[in-house]
Amino acid sequence: MTASPEDAIAAVIDAGHRAAARGWVPATSGNFSARVDAARMAVSATGADKGALTRDDVLVLDIAYPRHERASAEAPLHAQLYRDRPETGAVWHVHSENAVLVSLRHGGAGAVPLAGLELLKAFRGITTHEAEIRVPILPNDQDTPRLAAQASRHILEDARLWGYLIAGHGLYAWGTTPAEAWRHLEAFDALFSLHLRSTGGHK
Amino acid sequence: MTASPEDAIAAVIDAGHRAAARGWVPATSGNFSARVDAARMAVSATGADKGALTRDDVLVLDIAYPRHERASAEAPLHAQLYRDRPETGAVWHVHSENAVLVSLRHGGAGAVPLAGLELLKAFRGITTHEAEIRVPILPNDQDTPRLAAQASRHILEDARLWGYLIAGHGLYAWGTTPAEAWRHLEAFDALFSLHLRSTGGHK
Amino acid sequence: MTASPEDAIAAVIDAGHRAAARGWVPATSGNFSARVDAARMAVSATGADKGALTRDDVLVLDIAYPRHERASAEAPLHAQLYRDRPETGAVWHVHSENAVLVSLRHGGAGAVPLAGLELLKAFRGITTHEAEIRVPILPNDQDTPRLAAQASRHILEDARLWGYLIAGHGLYAWGTTPAEAWRHLEAFDALFSLHLRSTGGHK
Amino acid sequence: MTASPEDAIAAVIDAGHRAAARGWVPATSGNFSARVDAARMAVSATGADKGALTRDDVLVLDIAYPRHERASAEAPLHAQLYRDRPETGAVWHVHSENAVLVSLRHGGAGAVPLAGLELLKAFRGITTHEAEIRVPILPNDQDTPRLAAQASRHILEDARLWGYLIAGHGLYAWGTTPAEAWRHLEAFDALFSLHLRSTGGHK
Repeated sequence: MTASPEDAIAAVIDAGHRAAARGWVPATSGNFSARVDAARMAVSATGADKGALTRDDVLVLDIAYPRHERASAEAPLHAQLYRDRPETGAVWHVHSENAVLVSLRHGGAGAVPLAGLELLKAFRGITTHEAEIRVPILPNDQDTPRLAAQASRHILEDARLWGYLIAGHGLYAWGTTPAEAWRHLEAFDALFSLHLRSTGGHK
Repeated sequence: MTASPEDAIAAVIDAGHRAAARGWVPATSGNFSARVDAARMAVSATGADKGALTRDDVLVLDIAYPRHERASAEAPLHAQLYRDRPETGAVWHVHSENAVLVSLRHGGAGAVPLAGLELLKAFRGITTHEAEIRVPILPNDQDTPRLAAQASRHILEDARLWGYLIAGHGLYAWGTTPAEAWRHLEAFDALFSLHLRSTGGHK
Repeated sequence: MTASPEDAIAAVIDAGHRAAARGWVPATSGNFSARVDAARMAVSATGADKGALTRDDVLVLDIAYPRHERASAEAPLHAQLYRDRPETGAVWHVHSENAVLVSLRHGGAGAVPLAGLELLKAFRGITTHEAEIRVPILPNDQDTPRLAAQASRHILEDARLWGYLIAGHGLYAWGTTPAEAWRHLEAFDALFSLHLRSTGGHK
Repeated sequence: MTASPEDAIAAVIDAGHRAAARGWVPATSGNFSARVDAARMAVSATGADKGALTRDDVLVLDIAYPRHERASAEAPLHAQLYRDRPETGAVWHVHSENAVLVSLRHGGAGAVPLAGLELLKAFRGITTHEAEIRVPILPNDQDTPRLAAQASRHILEDARLWGYLIAGHGLYAWGTTPAEAWRHLEAFDALFSLHLRSTGGHK
């Protein structure tokens, strides 16, 4: 997938607005990116209120070296997904409450298992509810290049992986297009919520 | 009930938008249909985001043989309701979290009982809170014609039935008109939520 | 308080729309009324979707004898409040989930106690959080004139009472003006939610 | 920070509307203020519905002596923050359910501890999730000048403090600008919700 810079920026803004409407990016948290081409991504700048993103809050950066004075500290995590997975078209990172809660509950085990639910079919490549996926949970780390290296190992191991969690922090979800990345994000959040409610009250 | 194809399509689009606004169709899940006449239904196409349904995302199919390259895999479940119940005017299928949770909790028993609540009067034919209904729960099955045959047995047995659950999947609800099918859908979701919260925390 | 029929009707429509937006009137449940003068009230008709109320869905009825072919079966409960309490300006009846849940949990005791919370000051006549109120819970009854007689006893006993619950059914809340009735309704719902969450999970 | 009276009033109105949309100011609760200059603040008047605030509902008061016939009883709590903390640009006071619930659960201990979560970085001065903050909880008191004196002790002790709770009542949050105060408010609410859900169901 390639897109004009303008289309990639528009996809980032749209995802930010939608995530804010869901309450998934409280207190200016979250980051959103979309691929422009083999070398570049459009990515939200640091500190912006994602519910009020404008064109000026989105940067076009090199995925090999995503530096900019206004780049988010998490830009390396986005760039890594575009480098490791050439089919990646968009990456949405949110702090949804359900994501943070499952990351806290299952952080010790290193993954949250999801199985037996129709909604698993929302993930590209899954065609039956009789599937099981394991969403990796990485320990949180303020050194984001180091965190990206950790994520990379999981991503290269499992070609069916469309998301990972960072413990006490949030969720990265991606897809081959912005629409698919959003579908995956909605599926993760709904599955995490079902998991929490079906296995122990709201905990 | 019969409707012009245009009116049936408009009813499908409206229901999709309303269900999306409630969060009942995450990740492009759910399907919506309305009867055109004795032989045809308007039904949402596969893969569409139900919150962004347009006229182009709704197909008019034969209820005897609901095939189309863009038909949802669940079109046979809709068609079966129009065939088995001539009074059916619309069928709304959603993945509401409350529906999935009750289906998981009561799947073993094969039905969820609802009794003693004023909101039961929302169902056509019920005139007092001193009523009890049992909502059947079918095991999930990717073979939807086979699943439709299972549903058919319940539907033909109980003329007061306005909905059934599929375990780990979601809810089908219907009515003699689109408005009545929506009223039934809202009643089921509210009753499921009350059931979950009044009998064991959020589980 | 008196109002023109038009203003009373507008207040009813506004309250219906606001309650629907909160999810407090699922499946066409709920009724809304506002006083016109010493003899009349404007009240929502039976069966209407309260989120789509129009002028045509609101009737102006005599509070002494609230009969009309489109009158809600619960019109006598509204009329009774205007008769027993001359200061009543508006009555909002909703099926909010929190109201139904507290009515189920405390139905046996016949009342839900609320104490020690700042939000109690939202009720007319209460000036400190160091207050306690008891919200009566009536058993549900499809004979609404008989139910109104039960409500009447509580209302005439306690001049500080601004609401009561019907078990497994919902909440009646009122005030001297439509705005005050709404403030009381919001306060009840928030207090019921706090009560449920602070005393036993979501049950 | 200084602002024109008009800009400070507009910030107050905006915050009130946003808080109402979140359900954080039920039943006309909550108060909102923004600094004009070293001597004055714009502050919402008593009794107003914060979701319908207009210019006429906002007063410009002296922070040394915040009296006015329409002043909220809680104006002294706002004024105290502008006096004790010259960098304070805005103060948002809400009755969010999560805030009230944590205040009830931890009121005996006098503070709620928050630690180990990425969202802590939303607070000015915190740069890692490996931080811990303690949000003080004051006993509720209808004598608001006395309550302000209690708050003052906590505020002067801890320069990193951006909020405190009042037991059974709500949250005060502030920042050097209206946008920062809002970011802090969203962070507190999200962290309180995570705390409640990760440590004991919804209680």
